[in-house]
Amino acid sequence: MSFSSCLITLLTDFGTRDAFVGIMKGVILSIAPTVHIIDLSHDVPPQEILTGALILRSAVPFFPPGTIHVAVVDPGVGSQRRAVVVQTRDAFFVGPDNGLLSLAAPPESVVRVIHLTNTAYFLPRLSHTFHGRDVFAPVAAHLSRGVSLEVLGPTIPAIEELALPIIERTETQLIGSVTAIDHFGNLITNITEADLLPFPRETLWVSIGPVQIQGLVATYAAVSPDTVAALMNSWGVLEIAVRNGSAAQRLNTSIGTAVCVRIA
Amino acid sequence: MSFSSCLITLLTDFGTRDAFVGIMKGVILSIAPTVHIIDLSHDVPPQEILTGALILRSAVPFFPPGTIHVAVVDPGVGSQRRAVVVQTRDAFFVGPDNGLLSLAAPPESVVRVIHLTNTAYFLPRLSHTFHGRDVFAPVAAHLSRGVSLEVLGPTIPAIEELALPIIERTETQLIGSVTAIDHFGNLITNITEADLLPFPRETLWVSIGPVQIQGLVATYAAVSPDTVAALMNSWGVLEIAVRNGSAAQRLNTSIGTAVCVRIA
Amino acid sequence: MSFSSCLITLLTDFGTRDAFVGIMKGVILSIAPTVHIIDLSHDVPPQEILTGALILRSAVPFFPPGTIHVAVVDPGVGSQRRAVVVQTRDAFFVGPDNGLLSLAAPPESVVRVIHLTNTAYFLPRLSHTFHGRDVFAPVAAHLSRGVSLEVLGPTIPAIEELALPIIERTETQLIGSVTAIDHFGNLITNITEADLLPFPRETLWVSIGPVQIQGLVATYAAVSPDTVAALMNSWGVLEIAVRNGSAAQRLNTSIGTAVCVRIA
Repeated sequence: MSFSSCLITLLTDFGTRDAFVGIMKGVILSIAPTVHIIDLSHDVPPQEILTGALILRSAVPFFPPGTIHVAVVDPGVGSQRRAVVVQTRDAFFVGPDNGLLSLAAPPESVVRVIHLTNTAYFLPRLSHTFHGRDVFAPVAAHLSRGVSLEVLGPTIPAIEELALPIIERTETQLIGSVTAIDHFGNLITNITEADLLPFPRETLWVSIGPVQIQGLVATYAAVSPDTVAALMNSWGVLEIAVRNGSAAQRLNTSIGTAVCVRIA
Repeated sequence: MSFSSCLITLLTDFGTRDAFVGIMKGVILSIAPTVHIIDLSHDVPPQEILTGALILRSAVPFFPPGTIHVAVVDPGVGSQRRAVVVQTRDAFFVGPDNGLLSLAAPPESVVRVIHLTNTAYFLPRLSHTFHGRDVFAPVAAHLSRGVSLEVLGPTIPAIEELALPIIERTETQLIGSVTAIDHFGNLITNITEADLLPFPRETLWVSIGPVQIQGLVATYAAVSPDTVAALMNSWGVLEIAVRNGSAAQRLNTSIGTAVCVRIA
Repeated sequence: MSFSSCLITLLTDFGTRDAFVGIMKGVILSIAPTVHIIDLSHDVPPQEILTGALILRSAVPFFPPGTIHVAVVDPGVGSQRRAVVVQTRDAFFVGPDNGLLSLAAPPESVVRVIHLTNTAYFLPRLSHTFHGRDVFAPVAAHLSRGVSLEVLGPTIPAIEELALPIIERTETQLIGSVTAIDHFGNLITNITEADLLPFPRETLWVSIGPVQIQGLVATYAAVSPDTVAALMNSWGVLEIAVRNGSAAQRLNTSIGTAVCVRIA
């Protein structure tokens, strides 16, 4: 087995005050003592599947091939929602089949999807409320040790997809929206570099609520402190920021707020 | 030395804003460079020994035999309270002797208790305010390298016990209390599966303040969103939850609030 | 290569809600799969370089020789500020040249400073807003694998220094200030053990705002609960604390507040 399958990442909405995350790591290391475990985030807002899916998508390209990503934002735990493993060209994903995995593992990348039904790879006693501990952690640990996908359960055609906010286009403008707000209060949109490629950056006008921003800048430092700026961020999507401040607070914005780019 | 003694967990009330926890890890890795270190929680509310003890107890069963658990919630640091190592059948515990370790290491499990007095296994310069760094981290690191318990100090008969809230029983009801509130706002009680075993779950009435809940459900998803539910949680104790919401906020509850189960 | 250069620490103001930190770890482990990564803090208040510099200085002495410390509090990211590696007698530091590294790597300890210009050791695509991912993480990973400093860029004479608040001295008193407030609300000052060495501790008066404290105590537990106390903390600087409480809240203090010690 190559190194790369010795790396497991964790993304949850469990927070870090309780020992939920530590317990998942205990379960993993009891089965796979030499695996490396990396936290992506445990501060996904409770039950916010879309936010978790976006964070997961943002991180996955920067991990070695074969990394096993465990993601648990799971309001339907204990219900009929399926537990799955998704194998893509580059990675494995373990989690609930509620859309959480679908942005990081889009259909064109998927090699195989397994419905996790073989309880031999779960903890012996299965609770109704903590499958992170009882199902997803042990399955990921067994995967990292080279257990093959087929023994974990039947192959199924696909996972649940998550509907992302779409972009409306007219001849004179694109209308997207804020899909995430980061730790600094920067507003992350769903408008990509490709969307704006045909248009000269300095002639664009970006508007959000009553605020109009002329042109894109290259860096936060290109504007004066406390000034609102629009820029292409490090994931190649349009971002609205306030230098050394919080755009979310300043513009009183929440996820879903419309962002308009005037292209002519 | 087997692998399992190469795993150290950390539980503190130090938070993660300062470098207190990172420093403990630096001390450990300076002495035991290959040990694995897992965080249980560093967000125990400052000086809340009972909360720390409950979190530690919740996590310990999921770690491999021989794991060394370091726990530091230590309002008496620098005073006469003892520093101890507790060996149980399955694990080692390093921390202050103030009750913090006593729920995870109950008397019937204890093999030996050592009063940490041999300063040769501490950092050379001992502060009065940060024994996590100066005493507990280096002792745990030395333990993981196979140092035997006897050299660390004299054996003592027992550690301090922590008084847990007790359950009152009458012929018609059990009265327990909320012992913890988790990240999701779920209310964790001290009423166990064993307490309720004799009674059919669907006929039980659970009450907290003015709220009455009929019957236990199996999963969060078994009730409608925003509905209060009672269930046996993944540690086998009675929990009161609001689906996709916070029971603590909804019921305006704090630790210690009485929870009554009508059994007839 | 010795073990010690297999340890990388991370200090940022990125928070832990997004996956910024996890992504840096993915980048590092893609290049250096066996390195150990330790978090110092990711909760430096956004853009607060001085706070980050103080936390870094507090931690560095407790890590093994050869540790690589990556620190990113970087309001000037993407501007003309330099990216650097600093080699000291004991460690390596990787980060922006904005003063952040200067307290942990003071001039007398510096062996060499390299201006990071060789893009062959960065990620292939360099963003303008996330050099933690694109520059500092990969450079640290390459360093841990034994890449020599000279190939990373030209040697430069020195890094930017950070101005620390100074202490005013008269014949009867020292006037310092609060430089940091820790997780417990303890007030950390810039007055050191050396500053107070000539004076008997019990005769000192420490004042902050309208509050006067007579004498220093050895431990938090030496005063009654909820009482304000002054003591030398575990880093050898004067600290003002409230037993089992928060001095910052109680005294309504912020960073920069003057602290006066009457020495006669």
